[in-house]
Amino acid sequence: MPSGTLYLIPVPISETDLCLVVPNYNSELVNSLTYFIAEDAKNARRFLKQCNYADISKAEIAELNEHTKSNSVSELIKPLIEGKNVGLLSDAGCPGIADPGADVVKLAHQKNIVVKPLIGPSSIVLSIMASGFNGQNFAFVGYLPIEKPQRCKRIKELENLAVKSNLAQFFIETPYRNGQLFDDLIQTLQPETLLFIGINLTSSSEKLVSKSVKMWKQAPKPDFHKIPAVFGIYR
Amino acid sequence: MPSGTLYLIPVPISETDLCLVVPNYNSELVNSLTYFIAEDAKNARRFLKQCNYADISKAEIAELNEHTKSNSVSELIKPLIEGKNVGLLSDAGCPGIADPGADVVKLAHQKNIVVKPLIGPSSIVLSIMASGFNGQNFAFVGYLPIEKPQRCKRIKELENLAVKSNLAQFFIETPYRNGQLFDDLIQTLQPETLLFIGINLTSSSEKLVSKSVKMWKQAPKPDFHKIPAVFGIYR
Repeated sequence: MPSGTLYLIPVPISETDLCLVVPNYNSELVNSLTYFIAEDAKNARRFLKQCNYADISKAEIAELNEHTKSNSVSELIKPLIEGKNVGLLSDAGCPGIADPGADVVKLAHQKNIVVKPLIGPSSIVLSIMASGFNGQNFAFVGYLPIEKPQRCKRIKELENLAVKSNLAQFFIETPYRNGQLFDDLIQTLQPETLLFIGINLTSSSEKLVSKSVKMWKQAPKPDFHKIPAVFGIYR
Repeated sequence: MPSGTLYLIPVPISETDLCLVVPNYNSELVNSLTYFIAEDAKNARRFLKQCNYADISKAEIAELNEHTKSNSVSELIKPLIEGKNVGLLSDAGCPGIADPGADVVKLAHQKNIVVKPLIGPSSIVLSIMASGFNGQNFAFVGYLPIEKPQRCKRIKELENLAVKSNLAQFFIETPYRNGQLFDDLIQTLQPETLLFIGINLTSSSEKLVSKSVKMWKQAPKPDFHKIPAVFGIYR
C-alpha cells in the first residue's frame, strides 16, 4: 500500500481573515484531511473552523509539542504508513520553522513518505524580506540566552558574524522579555550596526522598523511588551 | 505629504494557478497599484496578467537588477516619496530573499517609508520547512563558489558549521550546474551528513528528498539538469 502524504500547513500568526494570509487552496486541502498533527489540539480546531471544516468532531488531532517523547513521534506517523494523508499544523506560522514539527518531517523522510509544504505566513520569513538586509546570506538562530552576561556575549558573537561573514542574523524572544532584549541589544551593539524589529506581523498593528543602533538610541523605545516580535542585526 | 507604502509582492515560482500559491488579497492589492519595481518588466507584466490587472499598458514598471546602478535606486523610490504606493516584485519568489530587492527596501527604511511584506512562495522557505532539519537554527548562504577546489572547501566549511554550531545550511546553484554541485557534495560530505534536495518546488513535478550522503550514494542521481533546486545539509 502506498503511504499517505504529509502536508505542512501554515496557520495564521495574527487575528486576521484567512484570505489575507493563505492561498485558497490551503483551506480546500485542509477540508480533504481527517488526520492532523498539531502543537495544541484546541488551536488546531480553531484553525479548522476558520477553514470551514465540515465536521470538527470527526477530525483526529494528535499533539506534538515539548512534552511529546521522541519515541512517540513514530506513533504520530502511523496513519501515513497506513496510506492516509496527514496535515501537520504549527501553532502559528509555518510548520518546521521555529516549531517542533521538524521531528515528524525528519521521520517522514526516513520512511520515504512524501512531504508537501504549503505556502503561508511566517513572521521570520516576512522579517527577512522586510529587513532590507542581505537576502543572499542570512541566518535564523532562535532564542538568545536568558542570563544577561551570556546574552550579551551572544549578541556580540552574532554582530561579529554579521560583519565578518556578511550574514544577517535573525532571532526571537519570549514576548514578555522583548523590552529587556531591546535594552541589551542597544547597549551591546556598535552604533553603526543596523537593528531590525518586526512587531505583530500581518496584524492591523504590524510595525517593521530598521535603523542603526545610534538612531534607535535617539528614538522612543518600541512599545511591544508581550507582543510577538522578530529581531535582526546586520552591518 | 505622507509617503506611500512599499509592498513586497511574491511571484509564483512555477507554472501554476495563482490561487494555489498566493492569498487572494495579493491580487486585489496588485490591482490597486500603478507603480511597480521589478527585476524584469516583461516577467512583471506576465504576473500582472495572472492577477487580472485591468490595463497593463498603464502600469509603470521600473527595473531593478544587477545592471541597476546603486545611485539610481533612489530614483526608483521617488513615487513613494511623492505619496504613491509601489509594488516590489521578484522575478520568482519573495522579494528580498535571494533577489536584488533588498537594496530598495534598505533605502525605504532610511526614508521612513512603510514597508509591507506580502505572503507567497519561496523555494528556500519551503525547503527549510520540508527538510526536517533544524527550524530553530538555519542559514541560507546563497551560491557556492564555482571553481571545484574553493567549492569543496566551502562545502566542508558548511558541514562544519552544521555539525559544530548545529546550524542547518541551505544554498542554491544555477540550474545547469546542479549535477556538478551534487557530485561535489556527495564526494566531499561525510557519509552520515544529511543532504536535502528540493526540486521544482510548487510545480506538478515537485520533488523533496532528504537522506544521508551514504544513502544518496546508493540511490540514482536526481534528474534535475536545468531545473531550479535548493540544497541543504545538516547532521
